[in-house]
Amino acid sequence: MASSNNDHDQVKAAGLFERLRGKIVEFGLMLKKLGQDDPRRIVHSLKVALALTLTSMLFYFEPLYDGFGIAAMWAILTVVVVFEFTVGATIGRGLNRIMSTVVAAALGIGAHRLATLSGNQGEPILIALFVFVEAGIVTFFRFIPQMKARYDYGLLIFNLTFCLISVSGYRDEEVIRLGFERVSTIIIGSFTAVTVCVFIRPVWIGVELHNQIATNMEKLANFLEEFGDEYFTVSENGQIRDKSSSLQGYKSVLTSKGSEDTMANLARWEPGHGRFKFHHPWKQYLKVGTLTRQCAFKIEALNNYLTSEAQTPQEVKSIIQGPSVVISSECGKALKQLATSMRKMTKSSSNDPHIAKSKDAAEELKAVIRSSLCKLPADSLHIIQEGAVASLLFEIIRCTEKIADAVHKLASQAHFKDVKPTVTPDQENSVNDGPHHVIAIE
Amino acid sequence: MASSNNDHDQVKAAGLFERLRGKIVEFGLMLKKLGQDDPRRIVHSLKVALALTLTSMLFYFEPLYDGFGIAAMWAILTVVVVFEFTVGATIGRGLNRIMSTVVAAALGIGAHRLATLSGNQGEPILIALFVFVEAGIVTFFRFIPQMKARYDYGLLIFNLTFCLISVSGYRDEEVIRLGFERVSTIIIGSFTAVTVCVFIRPVWIGVELHNQIATNMEKLANFLEEFGDEYFTVSENGQIRDKSSSLQGYKSVLTSKGSEDTMANLARWEPGHGRFKFHHPWKQYLKVGTLTRQCAFKIEALNNYLTSEAQTPQEVKSIIQGPSVVISSECGKALKQLATSMRKMTKSSSNDPHIAKSKDAAEELKAVIRSSLCKLPADSLHIIQEGAVASLLFEIIRCTEKIADAVHKLASQAHFKDVKPTVTPDQENSVNDGPHHVIAIE
Repeated sequence: MASSNNDHDQVKAAGLFERLRGKIVEFGLMLKKLGQDDPRRIVHSLKVALALTLTSMLFYFEPLYDGFGIAAMWAILTVVVVFEFTVGATIGRGLNRIMSTVVAAALGIGAHRLATLSGNQGEPILIALFVFVEAGIVTFFRFIPQMKARYDYGLLIFNLTFCLISVSGYRDEEVIRLGFERVSTIIIGSFTAVTVCVFIRPVWIGVELHNQIATNMEKLANFLEEFGDEYFTVSENGQIRDKSSSLQGYKSVLTSKGSEDTMANLARWEPGHGRFKFHHPWKQYLKVGTLTRQCAFKIEALNNYLTSEAQTPQEVKSIIQGPSVVISSECGKALKQLATSMRKMTKSSSNDPHIAKSKDAAEELKAVIRSSLCKLPADSLHIIQEGAVASLLFEIIRCTEKIADAVHKLASQAHFKDVKPTVTPDQENSVNDGPHHVIAIE
Repeated sequence: MASSNNDHDQVKAAGLFERLRGKIVEFGLMLKKLGQDDPRRIVHSLKVALALTLTSMLFYFEPLYDGFGIAAMWAILTVVVVFEFTVGATIGRGLNRIMSTVVAAALGIGAHRLATLSGNQGEPILIALFVFVEAGIVTFFRFIPQMKARYDYGLLIFNLTFCLISVSGYRDEEVIRLGFERVSTIIIGSFTAVTVCVFIRPVWIGVELHNQIATNMEKLANFLEEFGDEYFTVSENGQIRDKSSSLQGYKSVLTSKGSEDTMANLARWEPGHGRFKFHHPWKQYLKVGTLTRQCAFKIEALNNYLTSEAQTPQEVKSIIQGPSVVISSECGKALKQLATSMRKMTKSSSNDPHIAKSKDAAEELKAVIRSSLCKLPADSLHIIQEGAVASLLFEIIRCTEKIADAVHKLASQAHFKDVKPTVTPDQENSVNDGPHHVIAIE
């Protein structure tokens, strides 16, 4: 009996061990995937490790240690809290930290001096008063939206430094030395973090924003290019579309506002790099982003008809099929071309043949609706549904045009390269009279 | 000439002074507005000031100072970085900071001991290696999404403490005392921040989330209640609606996902308070939020027809006017009632008379479309546009039903109060057979 119990325990222990091993393997695979999805994460981790090891040198070498003493730990602390994934975020935090430390240290020293003048009795009361007033005001300033967007961290550090300097000064008469040490170690830490961040495989948040805006356009384009085929062939086999299909990539665009705003705020801290100048028009990126999101809202509405259970019979659908497929795919192509020229930082022709084609198809679709759709002997509800799809497609053309205008404006503001237009009128069998400028860079 | 220059300078100086005064007055008014918009901001600023002044006491009193020495500044630092606007955020940061400091300090002491064993030559190399490996791993862990959501700050502080302890230990043999000091001062700082935050006019982020979800529903309800009147009377005077009208409140719902996710994450740190228990179903709030946002996407599409320049002639609109106005306003009422019962934390009847009415109106609208809309001698494009409006209204009913289901589920999960249903069949002139349960709490 005892032996059987023992066996049982062993089996249990083995099972537990197996499960633990499974968990660990799972965790390892998850880490591996994180690294593979974006290898810059591994590089970033190594960069942080390097910057921290470098700063630790401050403690190793006697002369530096004698200079800064225990205050050298501020440098380590600074590296840890300042070093972010992107250059913009790192510089933003570094500058915030340095500037506010300098100002707050000066004020803290002043407050300490003022308090000392009032004698032994008054000193702690005055310092407590100063701390209370300063902390109250600075904390309230953090609610100002413009401050919050760019200087929130600076205000936090201001609060911190002022308290440390003025309060610790009460004990330590070397308050000026303390302030100087804090400022200089923080400058060393920030400098180390920024240097490593900028010079070893930098991740520019401006470039991230640039790419995200282009990617978002591509996500919409992918949906639009596929939509026609998906929608008009769905009822043949009577199946309802799988909601988790590859077309659903646009969903992330619906809620991308927050991350775009943050990126644009941080991008403004970055110095010029590559083809991005210091005063790159980040605000115009936000405008393109907003228009892309508005287009995504229309696509969300369109997607609804794709996944809806109440599918219209094929004979009603086929009335609007031809021009609808053209509108959708041409708008998709136009968006894809805009995204491509944005990625390559080239100016695309403002005379987009795809938009022109989709507009022609829209006229055709309107004619079809006028002449046949409402005269069909079908259930009016089905007719109305197809009408709603058509109506959304008209709006998507309008959105695409707006996006195109915004991208062209961005291209001129950001001095994107001109691409020599190659005139190839035959290539485009368009109904417009003049020859089209075809963008040669795709 | 000199005098005239002088006069000129004086005028310039006066102008500059006037402008400066104007700026200051403007800034003051902006601050006043910030405080009036949400007086809790002023309370929060005073709370932070109080907590900081309390912590500064550590320096004033000799016995405490003798105990902690310069390390007492960690307590001040902790208060500044831990004290957030809401209880959840403050507790989250405080716990993160304490836990990671304890673990990292222990590991740091261990690393330091291990390095000491290798002798004077090997020690700095080993410590540099430990710092590099630890910083690399911990920084990489911050990319794990589940970690990032709740323990990002903890990982940052882990990195910090490990480096401080293991590196400063190289110089200071009292490395264990240092670790102990750091842990205890951080606990004191966190404790002060959390206590002041919880016991003086606390702002619970769970309550904020609860209210925001209800407010978002109300914003949609406001649009829907007004939509009918706005849309169907627009073309009488031929004016296009002002886009900045009071109806546009729902726009903020479109992009509220980020803030809701953050709030739900932080709410989980909060202890039970009032009618919110520790395991309050925060995830269900997110589900209600997601459904509300989906409904907002439909409303965005509907709003398009409200502000569109191509208005349908009144004779076409009037065909669908009756049932459309009913659908829109009844869905609005249903949402408003759900929001109200959520605010009061009461269970509302799952048998919503407003939804029932809107469904009846939908049947009526379908009949109207079948019988008359497509037979009008009007431009088919206008007919299609009205069809699109009707189609969106059908979807809004479906959305409202889904929101109602999610709110009912939330009410039962979160143990909202039962409200005795007062049966008043006469009050509702409904076409349904059975009497309705009318919610008596509105």
